[in-house]
Amino acid sequence: MSESDVAGMRQALGEARNAQLLCPPNPAVGCVLVLPDGVRIAAHTRAVGQAHAEAAALEIAREMGRSPEGATAYVTLEPCSHHGRTPPCADALVAARVARVVVAVADPNPLVAGRGIERLRAAGIQVDVGLLADEARELNLGFFSRMVRRRPWVRMKIAASLDGRTALDDGTSQWITSPEARADGHQWRARAGALLTGIGTVLEDDPRLDVREVETPRQPLRVVVDSRLQTPASARILQPPGDVLVYAASEETARAGPLRATGAEVACLPNPHGKVDLLAMLNDLAARGVNELHVEAGHKLNGSFVREDLVDEYLVYLAPRLLGRGRDMLDFGPLVALRDAPQLEFLEIERIGPDLRIRARPPGRDRF
Amino acid sequence: MSESDVAGMRQALGEARNAQLLCPPNPAVGCVLVLPDGVRIAAHTRAVGQAHAEAAALEIAREMGRSPEGATAYVTLEPCSHHGRTPPCADALVAARVARVVVAVADPNPLVAGRGIERLRAAGIQVDVGLLADEARELNLGFFSRMVRRRPWVRMKIAASLDGRTALDDGTSQWITSPEARADGHQWRARAGALLTGIGTVLEDDPRLDVREVETPRQPLRVVVDSRLQTPASARILQPPGDVLVYAASEETARAGPLRATGAEVACLPNPHGKVDLLAMLNDLAARGVNELHVEAGHKLNGSFVREDLVDEYLVYLAPRLLGRGRDMLDFGPLVALRDAPQLEFLEIERIGPDLRIRARPPGRDRF
Repeated sequence: MSESDVAGMRQALGEARNAQLLCPPNPAVGCVLVLPDGVRIAAHTRAVGQAHAEAAALEIAREMGRSPEGATAYVTLEPCSHHGRTPPCADALVAARVARVVVAVADPNPLVAGRGIERLRAAGIQVDVGLLADEARELNLGFFSRMVRRRPWVRMKIAASLDGRTALDDGTSQWITSPEARADGHQWRARAGALLTGIGTVLEDDPRLDVREVETPRQPLRVVVDSRLQTPASARILQPPGDVLVYAASEETARAGPLRATGAEVACLPNPHGKVDLLAMLNDLAARGVNELHVEAGHKLNGSFVREDLVDEYLVYLAPRLLGRGRDMLDFGPLVALRDAPQLEFLEIERIGPDLRIRARPPGRDRF
Repeated sequence: MSESDVAGMRQALGEARNAQLLCPPNPAVGCVLVLPDGVRIAAHTRAVGQAHAEAAALEIAREMGRSPEGATAYVTLEPCSHHGRTPPCADALVAARVARVVVAVADPNPLVAGRGIERLRAAGIQVDVGLLADEARELNLGFFSRMVRRRPWVRMKIAASLDGRTALDDGTSQWITSPEARADGHQWRARAGALLTGIGTVLEDDPRLDVREVETPRQPLRVVVDSRLQTPASARILQPPGDVLVYAASEETARAGPLRATGAEVACLPNPHGKVDLLAMLNDLAARGVNELHVEAGHKLNGSFVREDLVDEYLVYLAPRLLGRGRDMLDFGPLVALRDAPQLEFLEIERIGPDLRIRARPPGRDRF
């Protein structure tokens, strides 16, 4: 593939990034049409139920009075071939008589899985697959995870001091990190399909767990892990905006009733220990269309996720201060030997204002 | 000053860096002579008792059969004007009839303090001061600290997991970080005037606390903070190479005797609480010529240093793994409010092999 192909796909990836807050549970896809005279038309997936990237780009061409015939289309994900909420994009590209389609990565959705590419080829369109595939996959890792693993991509956010404390002994944690780091954290919240916390945090901090520090076209689902249904009906997390889902281990109607009365959904997924079955919960969240699950919980629930090896990515903000004593990041163990310590890889290190943002993953975790 | 001045001083700073392991307690100084025909002669301070950078450069010129007359000399620290272990460098530059001396930063040593520059000027030599002064000062921050504050620059090294654990509950800490990070840590050990640990670490880990992972021309003094003189005569830290100094809070002859018999020095510096007076110890170490003190201790002694605000720089290695429970980095507090948390600034973040190295300082701490 040529340099202009790479440039076309880079532009399409940029478009896709612009759709990340908007389009869950759909994947964020970018499409760039390069017309035979060199004019470029770029678009991305719109909100759920509205046009996918390819349809959006063709629509712009139509509005401009330009024919897409003979164009090259760069798309970051295989065009869909099935009727979902919108008609299939592969058909739209065929009908538009584009000459060539460059696809970054095949769709992991079993309803698509190569069929979009087949349909294009059957119509005589040249299709090239695999350009900047890793970047394209990474951009929709949550969608890939949901399709392939039937689980969301689980990202655990932790804000701590350099010495690893998330709060003072009395629970005071507002604020260890800087406004810049908190805004950055909300940027990650905004792209998630759901935000999750535990009953401990609800009772102690009474968080709203919504997206406020950045502009967003959509509020993620809010999820509380609350085995014994202790969430008070007055909890701020139950208030608008957005939907709320409370996972319990036993459905005591007396407690579930007032919660449901606030509009929250209560789901019961017990494990044999009388706690919420976290893996079953992840499967359930995937079935509900959650691609990325953003976890902001206390050390106990964090520790449970680690113990069950359910964390795909850590998003750790370290503030340049020392707390000495206080709350831990993660409560699990004790380990018998160092070789039993969960191993990660540092993916990316960034300074965010005065703080540090560390992204880490278990090695190979994104290869599913 | 010109671009060639900057280039000359940069080369001199590079030379100085090459002397950092060699020359403590002397400052690491670089000197570049640019002869009238453009030939450059570079040298740095040699081991204690041997030539300073300027004398070394003049000696090389002599060996090359080249006259330094009319040369420009770039020196990273003001040439000395006093007879110490070697004759004054200012006199040597005057005798060599150099035309101009560019000095990065004036010497903080009260025995020199501008007198070297005066002597050069009195001899009719043009002297320019202040080129790349911050870099030059940073390079010898320990020497500046000893001269100005009468304390070494205290650098605390901590190796921990991403969740801030330095060991498992049972003390197992070998190894949390990678071989690369350990070698890097030894590089920092090698430049220190002294390496310090506490009796807790001696009893639990029995460390040698020497420099082995990197080549070094010199072994730093090793220091144990051991209020009750519990260091066993068999402790590995008491074995060669290098000198050992044990600080106690009471000089029980019965316990001090066997230690002294191993060749270690025992010094008694009690505070009113029956512990070693850490500030008095720092003053004592400065009086002994320690510019940089490298602390590798356990959470208790680390916490004491933090509580007394004696740490000038943190050198934290974070490994990409999680330990859950285990030893803390620093034991101090509990704090009453977050505003009481010691505030730092991240100075430098580096990846070292799979690990992360974070250098942090209290804001403004290096402005003394």
